[in-house]
Amino acid sequence: MADKAQLQEAIKTQGEVVRKLKSEKASKEQIDEEVAKLLQLKAQLGGDEGKHVFVLKTAKGTRDYNPKQMAIREKVFSIIISCFKRHGAETIDTPVFELKETLTGKYGEDSKLIYDLKDQGGELLSLRYDLTVPFARYLALNKITNIKRYHIAKVYRRDNPAMTRGRYREFYQCDFDIAGQYDAMIPDAECLKIVYEILNELDLGDFRIKVNDRRILDGMFAVCGVPDEKFRTICSTVDKLDKMAWEDVKKEMVNEKGLSEDVADRIGEYVSMQGGQDLAERLLQDPKLSQNKQAFAGLTDMKLLFSYLELFQVTDKVVFDLSLARGLDYYTGVIYEAILSQTIPASVSTPAEQNGADEAGVSVGSVAGGGRYDGLVGMFDPKGRKVPCVGVSIGIERIFSIMEQKAEAEVLYKKNPKLLSQLQHCEETGIPLVAILGEQELKDGVVKLRNVASREEVDVPRADLVDEIKKRTL
Amino acid sequence: MADKAQLQEAIKTQGEVVRKLKSEKASKEQIDEEVAKLLQLKAQLGGDEGKHVFVLKTAKGTRDYNPKQMAIREKVFSIIISCFKRHGAETIDTPVFELKETLTGKYGEDSKLIYDLKDQGGELLSLRYDLTVPFARYLALNKITNIKRYHIAKVYRRDNPAMTRGRYREFYQCDFDIAGQYDAMIPDAECLKIVYEILNELDLGDFRIKVNDRRILDGMFAVCGVPDEKFRTICSTVDKLDKMAWEDVKKEMVNEKGLSEDVADRIGEYVSMQGGQDLAERLLQDPKLSQNKQAFAGLTDMKLLFSYLELFQVTDKVVFDLSLARGLDYYTGVIYEAILSQTIPASVSTPAEQNGADEAGVSVGSVAGGGRYDGLVGMFDPKGRKVPCVGVSIGIERIFSIMEQKAEAEVLYKKNPKLLSQLQHCEETGIPLVAILGEQELKDGVVKLRNVASREEVDVPRADLVDEIKKRTL
Repeated sequence: MADKAQLQEAIKTQGEVVRKLKSEKASKEQIDEEVAKLLQLKAQLGGDEGKHVFVLKTAKGTRDYNPKQMAIREKVFSIIISCFKRHGAETIDTPVFELKETLTGKYGEDSKLIYDLKDQGGELLSLRYDLTVPFARYLALNKITNIKRYHIAKVYRRDNPAMTRGRYREFYQCDFDIAGQYDAMIPDAECLKIVYEILNELDLGDFRIKVNDRRILDGMFAVCGVPDEKFRTICSTVDKLDKMAWEDVKKEMVNEKGLSEDVADRIGEYVSMQGGQDLAERLLQDPKLSQNKQAFAGLTDMKLLFSYLELFQVTDKVVFDLSLARGLDYYTGVIYEAILSQTIPASVSTPAEQNGADEAGVSVGSVAGGGRYDGLVGMFDPKGRKVPCVGVSIGIERIFSIMEQKAEAEVLYKKNPKLLSQLQHCEETGIPLVAILGEQELKDGVVKLRNVASREEVDVPRADLVDEIKKRTL
Repeated sequence: MADKAQLQEAIKTQGEVVRKLKSEKASKEQIDEEVAKLLQLKAQLGGDEGKHVFVLKTAKGTRDYNPKQMAIREKVFSIIISCFKRHGAETIDTPVFELKETLTGKYGEDSKLIYDLKDQGGELLSLRYDLTVPFARYLALNKITNIKRYHIAKVYRRDNPAMTRGRYREFYQCDFDIAGQYDAMIPDAECLKIVYEILNELDLGDFRIKVNDRRILDGMFAVCGVPDEKFRTICSTVDKLDKMAWEDVKKEMVNEKGLSEDVADRIGEYVSMQGGQDLAERLLQDPKLSQNKQAFAGLTDMKLLFSYLELFQVTDKVVFDLSLARGLDYYTGVIYEAILSQTIPASVSTPAEQNGADEAGVSVGSVAGGGRYDGLVGMFDPKGRKVPCVGVSIGIERIFSIMEQKAEAEVLYKKNPKLLSQLQHCEETGIPLVAILGEQELKDGVVKLRNVASREEVDVPRADLVDEIKKRTL
């Protein structure tokens, strides 16, 4: 039984891996993963030596929410939902899985990350990868040509998880989309306004919203000399510029995607450009780019978009960035992505993640993205009837990560904290009211309420406490 | 190419099936299913004749929710959640899939209905079948021995769908569970109280809650002469008594499960018994049953349970019913199930469903169920530590079906309805306020508000309308 001996050897080796990690105080996540491998090897051994050991864990890349985390989640949702409703959206829901075919050909190179269900007889199914394709399927199936809808639900991607940075295999998306024929760039501008409002209200610190247009990218590729059939794949490579240096992106273009150095360099010049309405105007003067129909249309719309963004007073955070590409196949016009400036403190990201190949630093990164996809509904409609759509998706897990760390700070008091240092903490963190229950208050059956800002104090009978707090925090 | 000829023949036959159904005006669901089969056959043909046709639909047994349906869903959830919160529950969430092994051996004969994910490398996963097993896994993983939690989420079963009756393959469960060591029957009684409150508040008409105890069933099986190893499988057969006549259940026991006629008949006598506390007392006098330790413990607890139910004033709807078995393996004590008396009008159930083999009539049936499962957490704990648990699951889809039909009635007005008939409709359906906007009101810039019950009318300036309605509907 050579197999058995090999297996026993593998178990011994894996046991050492686990012991080493434990002695090095590696992250719980890392240790759990290696322990799981060990247990699986033992299970393979079977028989007396390796009695089957059950592994108690959630599936890789997924998490439970405990009650405290649920409270944060509900708070975030309520801010997002009230913004969506303020902008006139209704909500819908779709099943967690779709016919496999419904998702086929919509996600480009990311399609390999789709979870398929096992063929147990009947239809071939896949878990939804986003909420946009199910929305387009919903519109086509119900022959809806006009709707403003939001949809908050979990989506599934067999990606490499980085949980402390909020990257999961099961995660929420909060989508807002506008379907229907409207005057150019008005719905697109509203989507950007919504991202702006939500990120402001969630109070996550500074952010930027990058904007570009697929037609500008395509025009740029044409002008630079990229062959037509390589537009999409080069687009995917450009999309990596937020995680990789230009030199590496260029290498991929030349070595893997077969562009000449010249062509790649010309792309490199364009994708380094950033600006606002002025950049759109300047590029409209670019003799090559303005001759390209696609680029001309995209740039004209970009100029118009910025004029609406100015009316909406959001241009302080919006940047026209020619390096923004977005990976998904279905975009046809404007695309955008919001990035938080804040980084997660090093203490909560594991060494493994910091050294990860595609993890340059530990910035929280993209928290919202979207764009125009005028062709997607038509792909589902039996007669190919198109319904123009534009939308945005808020990626809530990274926001949860930040909010959970904030909430953690709120309960991390000192042991035996002095009253004064507690009050100081409230002033620093903007807590509006303090309830003080000292010996005197206990004796009098009251609670002392202190307004942190004005330092006023008032004794409130216990029976009136809830009403009083409500009144003062409205 | 005999295969091709066969396929063309099959396509021809299937085409006739579809045409026949259409001419018979069969249900949309039924036609869609046959059309899907036809398209699949055509796809198999491939080549020029059968160019691949995309089938635009949701996966079998699933549905979209449109904005109107979402409004109903949110209303139902808010009633249920506020009841759960009133009873002191916090909420948690778990991933939609678990390790396949986590679900193994928990559901008895129903395990065949579990959706597995495809093995794409990595862990073997399954979609959750209920929220109870993930809850027990959560408790064991986080070493929690004490919690009152609710969880509202979708679960997945590869069952035979009957959509107009609210039976889907993807459906919501609203679960409330109490984990922890408490005095006998108090948490169990609270779960029943919650079902009672929620079904009352949802205003779905009359209902009954059947109660039994797994220990009583096991004792009864022992006393009747069922061999130990057949307890679970006979339990599954007894569970079918709500859908099958006793004669058919008996046949299954004798022909499929190998009981003797005598044994089956003795079971038949017991399972016809229904009552309240009195029945528990009477069975405690049954010389055989009271000698059985399991049955004695179960009956003593049943008596105690009814004394609490009396204090909670819910005994008018609760019946101790010896035929209630519930299919799942993990129950260890009290079990219960709530059944609405209301039936869905024939017009909305398709002929196919009415004639379905296991569809006796079109009663909405069970809308809530649960019980005590003291051993489940221990199955996950590495050291087998047990955490006693009891809980209830509200099956919301059937309730949605009823509410959606009710809501449908609210918008089905006549064309050109007379004011008087509109007011009459309001009186009949209990709508409290009517806003009237006639020519005079338009001219005066007011809205006439009519109190439907008192028939009082008052003109309200348009600017004050919202406040006035709020004041009158508080």
